[in-house]
Amino acid sequence: MLELKRIAIDTYRDNVAFLARNCSVYRPEEYQALKKIQVMNGSHHLLASLLIVDDETIVGPGELGLSEQAFRRMGLKAGTRVTIAPAEPPGSLDHLRRKIHGHTLDSAQIEEIITDIANYRYSEMEIAAFLVSSAGFMTTDEMLSLTKAMAQAGTQLRWKSPVVVDKHCIGGIPGNRTSMIIVPIVAAHGLTIPKTSSRAITSPAGTADTMEVLAKVDLSMPEMQRVVEECNGCIVWGGHVNLSPADDILISVERPLSIDTREQMVASILSKKLAAGSTHLLVDLPLGPSAKIRNHTDAMRLRKLFEYVGNQVGLAIDVIVTNGAQPIGNGIGPVLEARDVMSVLRREEGAPMDLREKSLQIAGALLENDPGLRGGSGYAQAQELLDSGAALKSMERIIEVQGRAQEVFCVGELAYDVLAPISGTVTAIDCYRLARIARLAGAPMDKGAGIDLFKKIGDNIAKGEPLYRIHACFQSDYSFAVKYVSEGNGYAIGELA
Amino acid sequence: MLELKRIAIDTYRDNVAFLARNCSVYRPEEYQALKKIQVMNGSHHLLASLLIVDDETIVGPGELGLSEQAFRRMGLKAGTRVTIAPAEPPGSLDHLRRKIHGHTLDSAQIEEIITDIANYRYSEMEIAAFLVSSAGFMTTDEMLSLTKAMAQAGTQLRWKSPVVVDKHCIGGIPGNRTSMIIVPIVAAHGLTIPKTSSRAITSPAGTADTMEVLAKVDLSMPEMQRVVEECNGCIVWGGHVNLSPADDILISVERPLSIDTREQMVASILSKKLAAGSTHLLVDLPLGPSAKIRNHTDAMRLRKLFEYVGNQVGLAIDVIVTNGAQPIGNGIGPVLEARDVMSVLRREEGAPMDLREKSLQIAGALLENDPGLRGGSGYAQAQELLDSGAALKSMERIIEVQGRAQEVFCVGELAYDVLAPISGTVTAIDCYRLARIARLAGAPMDKGAGIDLFKKIGDNIAKGEPLYRIHACFQSDYSFAVKYVSEGNGYAIGELA
Repeated sequence: MLELKRIAIDTYRDNVAFLARNCSVYRPEEYQALKKIQVMNGSHHLLASLLIVDDETIVGPGELGLSEQAFRRMGLKAGTRVTIAPAEPPGSLDHLRRKIHGHTLDSAQIEEIITDIANYRYSEMEIAAFLVSSAGFMTTDEMLSLTKAMAQAGTQLRWKSPVVVDKHCIGGIPGNRTSMIIVPIVAAHGLTIPKTSSRAITSPAGTADTMEVLAKVDLSMPEMQRVVEECNGCIVWGGHVNLSPADDILISVERPLSIDTREQMVASILSKKLAAGSTHLLVDLPLGPSAKIRNHTDAMRLRKLFEYVGNQVGLAIDVIVTNGAQPIGNGIGPVLEARDVMSVLRREEGAPMDLREKSLQIAGALLENDPGLRGGSGYAQAQELLDSGAALKSMERIIEVQGRAQEVFCVGELAYDVLAPISGTVTAIDCYRLARIARLAGAPMDKGAGIDLFKKIGDNIAKGEPLYRIHACFQSDYSFAVKYVSEGNGYAIGELA
Repeated sequence: MLELKRIAIDTYRDNVAFLARNCSVYRPEEYQALKKIQVMNGSHHLLASLLIVDDETIVGPGELGLSEQAFRRMGLKAGTRVTIAPAEPPGSLDHLRRKIHGHTLDSAQIEEIITDIANYRYSEMEIAAFLVSSAGFMTTDEMLSLTKAMAQAGTQLRWKSPVVVDKHCIGGIPGNRTSMIIVPIVAAHGLTIPKTSSRAITSPAGTADTMEVLAKVDLSMPEMQRVVEECNGCIVWGGHVNLSPADDILISVERPLSIDTREQMVASILSKKLAAGSTHLLVDLPLGPSAKIRNHTDAMRLRKLFEYVGNQVGLAIDVIVTNGAQPIGNGIGPVLEARDVMSVLRREEGAPMDLREKSLQIAGALLENDPGLRGGSGYAQAQELLDSGAALKSMERIIEVQGRAQEVFCVGELAYDVLAPISGTVTAIDCYRLARIARLAGAPMDKGAGIDLFKKIGDNIAKGEPLYRIHACFQSDYSFAVKYVSEGNGYAIGELA
């Protein structure tokens, strides 16, 4: 028996255990570094990767150390006596090996794999192996099984209303904060729209980051349910609600490897929506030269796949291909995007028209799912709800019930204007480059950091006039962003003839 | 600047860095747990995975901790001032992504990947991604590039003799310690045979583990060269000589994932032999119902692949398919196998004839590579060298020059006889099961642990007579092995009619 010790090392998703090389109980040769062990005490047990320690101040010969996360997941007090054993590998590894060697898997096998992943039984190496073997080849049946298995592996929200609408954008377009306008419109109409959003991973802001400028977003499941009961809708961070946790784990490995297949994207998105209890989903696919989808063929293929899988898993799906040629709205970064959203909801002069228009279109399409609404009148109804101030009132109520933000966030004080090098007309804007600049400036970590656009495609500009302003909160970020801009500002300007 | 601190945690192949969450120099939000960072001081730099620490006794706010291995690789004293930066991902990841998405790679791209792997720039996740994407599909050109790139990524031994012979068995057969008989025969004849061997990973003994019962095997490159100069041959552990280090790293990920493709096996073996400076290689493919190769078609496919790649990389290859129906020799486990080897070399009565015969056949085939030897007389010459005592003398000299073992290893004192449950004739022996029993008994960690076989296929046995004896050094291992045997002893006995 060893005494449990909490080791204040943050190992993120990994469970890590620390054993002294001169352990008084177990033979260290049997327990090689990086191998997985099982830590046990009665009904408590945990799989962890092992590190061998030669420093008694970290772990003594009669102790077993667990990293922060592992200690918390183990759920026992320091000093509790535990035993360890070499871990039995998860049973589904046999299926994984079959997949690696080119076989197809049935739904029971995929479910076993996903259950093991959701329960932290796979190492990153094994997750990578699953993703890569699936990226190489995946049948539509496998994809359906994956979608369902992921949806079932975590929390499954259910709502009273028979119609629960949702929207999802595959991303890649800076700004584009339509959800925060669509949710209040749809909720004001009376449809249920329990929106769970993500935080930015590679972009300058996710909807959760932007909504956080205005309200609390890390709600628990009962808190979220209360908001939806009171307001018909919510805009919360999905991370606390444990929807499709296997998907989050897969994504944490997909990102660094840049694995980005249609099949995995569709399974990922639809598993989250199924788990969230949606019945009707609108998917927004922005198409543009620097967007994620760059040609019509790819957009159509992706649309068909969404429709096919949605049909099979019982989710009514509408896919719309939107203009992804440039950012939507003027702000990029949480504070600047929140400003645009509120400006549209408040019908302010100078509110970005492109953001308003796109939001109305999507909200209108969602409203068409109301059986009580006359077919084809969704857009007009959305416009009415926005222009009457009903949507603004709905948003204020959502903010109030979720909990108004305690802190007032301002735009970053360090500002740098990027000037037009020649006179002419803006012909293209590189979404990818602008996102990178905004991130270098500090977004989304610093909510006030980002970019404020003054010119969009088609606008005329004179040499020396500002194209956009970079905002940063820290000098080092400011310098990084300015330096990067000097290598290319992301704007193409056509000289006037 | 941070002060370097050595953290006495063994992280095996991974470089791990430890940063305090309250670091006084770097903003911790920029440095997320598990992300890779670059640690720098002048020309010294190192890539490491980051862990965030909340305990000042482990890492203080002005310090950067490095795990044992990372600290050693960094090559600087504790207290040296270093800077850190988010790591630039290795350039070859772009090629990896192409491979994941089904493209084929050219030789320059594969070389970049292998160079990055050999220099510890890939995470386990990335290595797994490379292996799985290659397991799914690999052209023969890619395989050739992989073989050459791996051979070139580490030490490349070169020898004076124009003919340098070597042998390799793909493994899977317990006992089968032919190398330790073949090397002294071939060396006694005067051919150069610088044998580097592996330690057991999943088997009860590797040649290096068994040779270690008799002599020092962890020789440096100059030490190995001296032995070969004096004795024409050696039997050393390859681990210290840094031959094809990328292969070792790939294997460390292949094993836990059980990725086992023909292509990766051939590239792995041939890269090591190329790096070791061999000109002629004999490959032993044991074929049997519980061997790695279980049917003739697979054996032929593997043979063709060895021959093709050997031809392309300029290595003369002979492939022989041998009888892999049962263990070769009587002992399984380092001490018992060393006993068999010395018994054959000493021409003792009762020396295992199957081990002698197989060794003579392979040694004979290798001797045929001597241009001075009359074609077809290899076997007779091998027999002459063994029976005259020349091979024994050669072995004694190799042991002497490598350095005789300081410790005397004995067979494990805890012994358990496995008895025949019925009378009859032995019809089959399960190699895989016997290997597992020997490992549970403690081999290769405990050199004296293992199995001593009394009966082989075709032998008659009476009910209650011992089939084999299990030897263990520790009570817990003994119990594990005995318990496992009770579920099946690995022998099939046909009742006499």
